Amino acid sequence: MPSKYTTAQIAELMDQISNWGRWGKDDQRGALNFITNEKRAAAARLVKTGETVSLSLPLPTTPGRDNPMPVTHLMIRSGHIGHPLGSFGCADYFAIQPHGLATTHLDALCHHFYRGKLYNGFDAESEIDFQGAHKCAIDVARGGIITRGVLLDIPKIKNVDWIEPGAAIYPDDLDAAERDHRVKVGEADVLFIRTGRHKMRAARGASGIAGMAMPGLHASCLPWLHDRKIAVLGSDAVSDVEPTDYDAPLKMPIHTGTLVMMGVHLIDNADLEPLAEKCARDGRYDFMFSLLPLVLERGTASPANPIALF
Amino acid sequence: MPSKYTTAQIAELMDQISNWGRWGKDDQRGALNFITNEKRAAAARLVKTGETVSLSLPLPTTPGRDNPMPVTHLMIRSGHIGHPLGSFGCADYFAIQPHGLATTHLDALCHHFYRGKLYNGFDAESEIDFQGAHKCAIDVARGGIITRGVLLDIPKIKNVDWIEPGAAIYPDDLDAAERDHRVKVGEADVLFIRTGRHKMRAARGASGIAGMAMPGLHASCLPWLHDRKIAVLGSDAVSDVEPTDYDAPLKMPIHTGTLVMMGVHLIDNADLEPLAEKCARDGRYDFMFSLLPLVLERGTASPANPIALF
Amino acid sequence: MPSKYTTAQIAELMDQISNWGRWGKDDQRGALNFITNEKRAAAARLVKTGETVSLSLPLPTTPGRDNPMPVTHLMIRSGHIGHPLGSFGCADYFAIQPHGLATTHLDALCHHFYRGKLYNGFDAESEIDFQGAHKCAIDVARGGIITRGVLLDIPKIKNVDWIEPGAAIYPDDLDAAERDHRVKVGEADVLFIRTGRHKMRAARGASGIAGMAMPGLHASCLPWLHDRKIAVLGSDAVSDVEPTDYDAPLKMPIHTGTLVMMGVHLIDNADLEPLAEKCARDGRYDFMFSLLPLVLERGTASPANPIALF
Amino acid sequence: MPSKYTTAQIAELMDQISNWGRWGKDDQRGALNFITNEKRAAAARLVKTGETVSLSLPLPTTPGRDNPMPVTHLMIRSGHIGHPLGSFGCADYFAIQPHGLATTHLDALCHHFYRGKLYNGFDAESEIDFQGAHKCAIDVARGGIITRGVLLDIPKIKNVDWIEPGAAIYPDDLDAAERDHRVKVGEADVLFIRTGRHKMRAARGASGIAGMAMPGLHASCLPWLHDRKIAVLGSDAVSDVEPTDYDAPLKMPIHTGTLVMMGVHLIDNADLEPLAEKCARDGRYDFMFSLLPLVLERGTASPANPIALF
Repeated sequence: MPSKYTTAQIAELMDQISNWGRWGKDDQRGALNFITNEKRAAAARLVKTGETVSLSLPLPTTPGRDNPMPVTHLMIRSGHIGHPLGSFGCADYFAIQPHGLATTHLDALCHHFYRGKLYNGFDAESEIDFQGAHKCAIDVARGGIITRGVLLDIPKIKNVDWIEPGAAIYPDDLDAAERDHRVKVGEADVLFIRTGRHKMRAARGASGIAGMAMPGLHASCLPWLHDRKIAVLGSDAVSDVEPTDYDAPLKMPIHTGTLVMMGVHLIDNADLEPLAEKCARDGRYDFMFSLLPLVLERGTASPANPIALF
Repeated sequence: MPSKYTTAQIAELMDQISNWGRWGKDDQRGALNFITNEKRAAAARLVKTGETVSLSLPLPTTPGRDNPMPVTHLMIRSGHIGHPLGSFGCADYFAIQPHGLATTHLDALCHHFYRGKLYNGFDAESEIDFQGAHKCAIDVARGGIITRGVLLDIPKIKNVDWIEPGAAIYPDDLDAAERDHRVKVGEADVLFIRTGRHKMRAARGASGIAGMAMPGLHASCLPWLHDRKIAVLGSDAVSDVEPTDYDAPLKMPIHTGTLVMMGVHLIDNADLEPLAEKCARDGRYDFMFSLLPLVLERGTASPANPIALF
Repeated sequence: MPSKYTTAQIAELMDQISNWGRWGKDDQRGALNFITNEKRAAAARLVKTGETVSLSLPLPTTPGRDNPMPVTHLMIRSGHIGHPLGSFGCADYFAIQPHGLATTHLDALCHHFYRGKLYNGFDAESEIDFQGAHKCAIDVARGGIITRGVLLDIPKIKNVDWIEPGAAIYPDDLDAAERDHRVKVGEADVLFIRTGRHKMRAARGASGIAGMAMPGLHASCLPWLHDRKIAVLGSDAVSDVEPTDYDAPLKMPIHTGTLVMMGVHLIDNADLEPLAEKCARDGRYDFMFSLLPLVLERGTASPANPIALF
Repeated sequence: MPSKYTTAQIAELMDQISNWGRWGKDDQRGALNFITNEKRAAAARLVKTGETVSLSLPLPTTPGRDNPMPVTHLMIRSGHIGHPLGSFGCADYFAIQPHGLATTHLDALCHHFYRGKLYNGFDAESEIDFQGAHKCAIDVARGGIITRGVLLDIPKIKNVDWIEPGAAIYPDDLDAAERDHRVKVGEADVLFIRTGRHKMRAARGASGIAGMAMPGLHASCLPWLHDRKIAVLGSDAVSDVEPTDYDAPLKMPIHTGTLVMMGVHLIDNADLEPLAEKCARDGRYDFMFSLLPLVLERGTASPANPIALF
């Protein structure tokens, strides 16, 4: 497996995994199309005990080294105002940049471009302006993402607490995790790759943004993901390993390969620690999965509270 | 049934439906406690076809008569920037007052007070300050609200397009809807009351905030809701009928009775039109319901995209 | 005087009034360069009585027909929190789109382009990105705009309460106002043109944004402004008359001619009512003028409280 | 001079310097009342050369150790959009918490309370709510603050680069600076005390907020300030020395003594480096001063670009 990718190799890889046109030339939903009614009904049948696990970090309201633009959370009314006999209430306001590295969120397909194009060949420059994304915005998922979820816990199979920033995960690791977990990633699944980032973050504190290093998938995993026909890819980091030593100008090939070429939405910065503990405890790595994005027309992402239901 | 309530009658009513202490004196989750693992597992078993219906309005990004403080949606990067060969992406930012009357949202239990107290007797003034709500905030629901949902379609049983603003819905109407729909609201359910407000809004435009009138439940429905042990109450308006002619200083008794006394979270401004069509088409008024609130610690609400799964 | 302009005529006009290169090819301050130390010292000598008049509207915090995106003003701490013996305090937060039509503000030179170019020929596309304006931003005026101010009160000379929206002001009107007021606009002055818009707004309410009509200067005033070598142009509307019947694609030739070609900053939506009353009372139409913009690097405007000192 | 203050001594001090009632029981402008038309006219006569010096830091748009909530600056339109022949423009948006420690701003009198009272005895709890300050808000200064300014450069007279955080400035220092600078602080002046904080900040980086230490005035300076009848007090830090070793619960006696008791507005975090250089070069420490606050009704502060004119 090459540790370096040339520009030509990346280009070849992107062609190889392309889903452009697969669901028609006007399609904006990409691999969400894999999730059929039957798939959702089957996912519901995975539910046995009714236990839930949230995969969401709390929204960050203070700045951190990987979070220079936290959520602004202000109150519009508080608890001291109100008629002594009567009812009254408090209310709040928040402002958010959902793509932040400490925010659990769903990336819309419009979030990345490749050679000036969005998923399915839409033109980035003309389709994304100051009103937002006129194609492939987050509201294509307004029906919710409800399907089978699968966790592959990479630190577990490597017997480490976490994967170090900058260390890559390869297809062999995915295969090994499947064997260890006795699970098989399949069509229309939401696949989560655990790197242990939040265990590391709890132990070491957050890394800085500048020169940010992240554990994540090597570009060579893209054909694996494509073959399995996943619907969505999730991570406790950002799916891509960073930095890379590719010769190519394309520095986040997993983002590009999934969002742009395959039409696979990404879930960034999920909290996979409680999920990993639950899966290990039960010896079961699949579950009914739900993520219900906010209906922000022309939006490029939604903050989210993804839930695993067992 | 009295068309007017006196202060004393309201006070008696509030006492009658109180769940304070029911789940311990420290409880902050209220009627969400009705939703057990078994209830969630049973809800999943309601899924037959796998069809989904979103109950969310699009987030409002322009001002309207019932929406003077819309979502501010701005771009942080757009489509024209990026390396010609490489990947790049767009990103956005939004600011939201989630309690707005054109925003589908979940009210936290802290959102209303009664005689200076929150649900379970927590003190409003000391527990809710400029940092937000230190008790009964929206993050008590971080595990998600997943349970059985039931729709009662009031315009349908009255053979009208919508209930007029200011017109009240009474317990008899709820009983009649149950009979018509062949459904029974039960413990741990999320109950939606359709008034047809959004059909009216589409036909007539939004009403103004000042002197706002809304169709909704009469205060006399509170014992009915309490008996049924619902977990959450939802509406396409704000659950309360407005204005009221009660003598009491308490102007939104449904808000107060549910949020404060019963510990029942509220879903305001849901879009129940597609759901009503689906239910009528199928002749089935219950479904697996999911609402996955953002994990905003100390938050008073979450914008939400509630989903019905059939 | 032509009531219509062709594209070619507009282009000729723009060439005629160009100050590009006048202060060097790297200059970003434009006609602010007319304001010398001597001019400021002379302006100070205009002060006789020490009376001040603010030309600022209050910042608009509620939406209006010409103000769909008002200032968001929220509190961070209020009056009820604090040690009983000790000190404590309140604080607030605001969010603003300074170019709003109900906001008194100074436009940076970067605010408009002509044929893809900013003032002095800087390229709009490459110089203005999501970080803001890398050339001709508002902070070029960080030293403050302090000079002589002159008011020309057009409704006064026409004996009307206000100039109707859509009605144009011509060079002859400017000459007539100078004669009436016994004042002469000269080099480095800030020139205010009163249309009476805020008297009209108080009487009739605000006009809507869509199809917005404004009283203002006809394009044929540009050579007059250029000859006088004004430093800044201000208005109680937006300087341009709107709508226009020009054949040209250029719909706001005063904005383009001043900001882009002449390097003349614009003050929009000033409140000129108290100033006009003061000037009429004193029979004096010039004064020491100060506008001290916020130092927002890369900013496209600053909300402002311009002051006339007599 | 006591290095410690007891609660009783602070209380006595506050009584001693009180201006409550001095300008009538309804007054909200405090020591701004010292600034008469005559004073403004006299200030204008101080202008000799017409040179200006800005006392404003750039608005901080990135977080820092003393700036956890920086200005959010976003674009609404940028440079790449527009008709090729025609005109178009860019626009922006910003959100600000003006009291930040890296933001040059004017504190409204409402910003601090003492024993539950604002300046002139207004009740903090009832006058400051979620709509903002109903008394003593920043818009009381809508006519602008234009008067004589005086700089006292403390590091200069102590022959140091800056005053260390936590080190106090005493009345003797103020007297010594007056003698050195051959200037006398008088009625209606804006007085700036330079500590050299920004020279220190440039050399060492910003200090953290938690346990923040600042150089500033000892509480014993309050009678001196009161005797001189200053209109406004300004600093390159926050006027108060922090931390203090007072026994009193009042930790920022300069804030309380000026804003609450004397009705003296404060300018925090001014950049006094260029001003100090100019004054030293000219051997002249007074100038015409202007600060023109934004007209934010009910606001607790205004970001500002104060200007010295020589």
